[in-house]
Amino acid sequence: MRRFVVIGGDAAGMSAAAQATRGAEPVEVVVFERSQYTSYAACGLPYFVGGLVERSEQLVARSPEQHRANGIDVRTCHEVIAIDTEAGRVAVRRLADGAVVDEPYDDLLIATGATPVRPPLPGIDATGISGIQTIPDALALDEIIRVRRPRHAVVVGAGYIGLEMVEAFLLRGLAVTVVEKLPQPMSTLDPDMAAKVADSIRAQGADLRLGTGVEGFEVGDDGWVRAVATDAGPVPAEIVVMGLGVRANSRLASDAGIAVGPSGAIATDARMATSADHVWAAGDCAESFHRVSRRPVSIALGTHANKQGRVVGLNVTGTHARFPGVIGTAITKVGPLEIGRTGLSEREAAAAGFDAVGAVIEGTSRAHYYPDASAMTVKLIAERGTGRLLGAQIVGGAEAGKRIDALAVAVWSEMTVDDLAQLDLAYAPPFSPVWDPTLIAARKTAERSR
Amino acid sequence: MRRFVVIGGDAAGMSAAAQATRGAEPVEVVVFERSQYTSYAACGLPYFVGGLVERSEQLVARSPEQHRANGIDVRTCHEVIAIDTEAGRVAVRRLADGAVVDEPYDDLLIATGATPVRPPLPGIDATGISGIQTIPDALALDEIIRVRRPRHAVVVGAGYIGLEMVEAFLLRGLAVTVVEKLPQPMSTLDPDMAAKVADSIRAQGADLRLGTGVEGFEVGDDGWVRAVATDAGPVPAEIVVMGLGVRANSRLASDAGIAVGPSGAIATDARMATSADHVWAAGDCAESFHRVSRRPVSIALGTHANKQGRVVGLNVTGTHARFPGVIGTAITKVGPLEIGRTGLSEREAAAAGFDAVGAVIEGTSRAHYYPDASAMTVKLIAERGTGRLLGAQIVGGAEAGKRIDALAVAVWSEMTVDDLAQLDLAYAPPFSPVWDPTLIAARKTAERSR
Repeated sequence: MRRFVVIGGDAAGMSAAAQATRGAEPVEVVVFERSQYTSYAACGLPYFVGGLVERSEQLVARSPEQHRANGIDVRTCHEVIAIDTEAGRVAVRRLADGAVVDEPYDDLLIATGATPVRPPLPGIDATGISGIQTIPDALALDEIIRVRRPRHAVVVGAGYIGLEMVEAFLLRGLAVTVVEKLPQPMSTLDPDMAAKVADSIRAQGADLRLGTGVEGFEVGDDGWVRAVATDAGPVPAEIVVMGLGVRANSRLASDAGIAVGPSGAIATDARMATSADHVWAAGDCAESFHRVSRRPVSIALGTHANKQGRVVGLNVTGTHARFPGVIGTAITKVGPLEIGRTGLSEREAAAAGFDAVGAVIEGTSRAHYYPDASAMTVKLIAERGTGRLLGAQIVGGAEAGKRIDALAVAVWSEMTVDDLAQLDLAYAPPFSPVWDPTLIAARKTAERSR
Repeated sequence: MRRFVVIGGDAAGMSAAAQATRGAEPVEVVVFERSQYTSYAACGLPYFVGGLVERSEQLVARSPEQHRANGIDVRTCHEVIAIDTEAGRVAVRRLADGAVVDEPYDDLLIATGATPVRPPLPGIDATGISGIQTIPDALALDEIIRVRRPRHAVVVGAGYIGLEMVEAFLLRGLAVTVVEKLPQPMSTLDPDMAAKVADSIRAQGADLRLGTGVEGFEVGDDGWVRAVATDAGPVPAEIVVMGLGVRANSRLASDAGIAVGPSGAIATDARMATSADHVWAAGDCAESFHRVSRRPVSIALGTHANKQGRVVGLNVTGTHARFPGVIGTAITKVGPLEIGRTGLSEREAAAAGFDAVGAVIEGTSRAHYYPDASAMTVKLIAERGTGRLLGAQIVGGAEAGKRIDALAVAVWSEMTVDDLAQLDLAYAPPFSPVWDPTLIAARKTAERSR
């Protein structure tokens, strides 16, 4: 029986493992996971801290026991420390006693995830400063809020995780300051759209300090963080979350001579195979192909991890499966504000060599006369001349964000904005004005892109 | 100066008129409208009756005065009674005094709309029985409810308008019985999905009687309706709305020798031109090309009317514009239930000559751990062998219905369910499970369609 070894028991690793057990031929599936958890929803952690999710166990889609019941040999608290691609073996440290054992594989999946960026600033190891990536991170934050009752939280970085933590802290009644080095929040949006996000965050009561660099942390005698030192002076803080994004955990692979791509994540082909025979990579540690820029990218997102893991699970059990790539679709919310984006921003389009043109319109989620219509701003980016839709961004109230999906399908299908403007989208007064905002945006972009 | 005459001052007619005034060359635009209203939202009328829209004026997007201020010669209470395509003239009756005048045109748009089906059943002219198509219809229903305080309403027909009126009557506190001849509500859904709609309507307190034909109406001595006579006995009724769909107003065109298509609506080409030179048709009276069945269809919907009107407005002012057709996308809600559909149903696909296969899955709108996730059922229909997505249906709670848009773009783009399953749709816990229900449905349909 072939042996499929998986390094990392979260979304990508467990999707692959589960898929492999469902193949035509029986396969021995062994998963080594460093922590005591499997299949937990890292993306749900901010909502646990915010009190929207009551118990951390709800974030675990499947426990190690459940996976074992499905025939997967899950070994938690086991860390793979080296890969020998020649011999087809991995060295595994059993964290309980430190013993290192050698395990053979026929196929190997590297699904080691990513780690929050944690710059080596003075004071960063003070108590009260953390990332938000694991269940213990979330439990610790929750306990600090309950027990120490801090009044001031600082979030460093105004990206997805940062803003989700802003919402979480506001929900828990803390005063929140966000410190962001760039002149805008959410660098995946163009500045004009990001400005609307900034306005909303401030209107919700957070103190958003843009263009402000963090220089270190002031630490009290008790070892707890007291303030965040910035280039514009100190910001008092009793609790700090670092939201500077994540970096792919590709070191284990590169140490084994497996190719790492320009993004810093493990290079993969369309089947999610790495440069080493019978070694695959999936999830946050792996590169994806961006279908619009046609470049490899590193995008840490559970939905990609699941799909890529499934593709690997199929490939190691005899089905030729392909991961067709990503287009950078993302969505989040901060309080009542919904934010969606897909494809390339105007900035990204220019960087990818497109002659791009953008247009922005204001619209509403429902017919103007129907109750509780929410306002939204839609920006589309198209290629000048051809009118090909390159990307879209939406910022608005309820029912705005998920509208990005229709635009994502249009970007994926390489549709033109002229075609998009004529699309047969669902219309009824409780759901849309007679011209959906996305269609109005397409019309305006079509006019500009000629 | 060329003269563009428009028959009908609602969505299609006024969109065309407005577009024509924005062309490079000045055009004289004259609109003849039978009623005293222009540009009113027929689709909003049930929400006015339901009390969700306070004033009927809110349903008027632009009044005749506003259109006139934009340079359009709108003549309300004027009915076009004949078209002479040889001479390029229309005969117009001024309803105030009955005078008939002859008006020349260089281009003519027929935008006469559609009329609710009203079968010649015994008693149908009783007071208290109406359609719901015009503002006076809605005002009359509202007044009956306020003044006569009826307790029992009957809705005949369980299609879109019928079910929207069920919601409206329930909101006004009436007991509602729905009488539908077919064994299911919403004939544009397959029976399995329609059954879920039926369950919800009943759970909301309406008495839904399927497979029940209406034979006539019992009328009291005061001339008011007292009951609906059905083949299963009488149903007490103090107020009745006919929701049997609409029929295209194509008689004026056919009397003038203009071709009417197999659907009963006016035949059009891709530019919305009719069989007569310089005569165009748009909106509910005109046929559209269905991009999946590749057959002409008659679908009365404001969003098509607006788009088609705009296309005609462009064509009569020197821009070559095309209406690319429809794919039958539709959405509605009944209380908390959202219903969306696009493309062909399983039944329609078979009728159009496809070897079609369907798959149904249950999913949720949000991550399982995120509060207030709603349940939804997604059905996809694909072509066996090629896996081409032919259609989709969604029935579920909040945030279910508008998910049909992403599927509509996929149907429009002739995407396969294999591709669909891999799509980069927006994921975050408040908006979607890590596998969006549409993706799960695509996977299951892909397996079945091979």
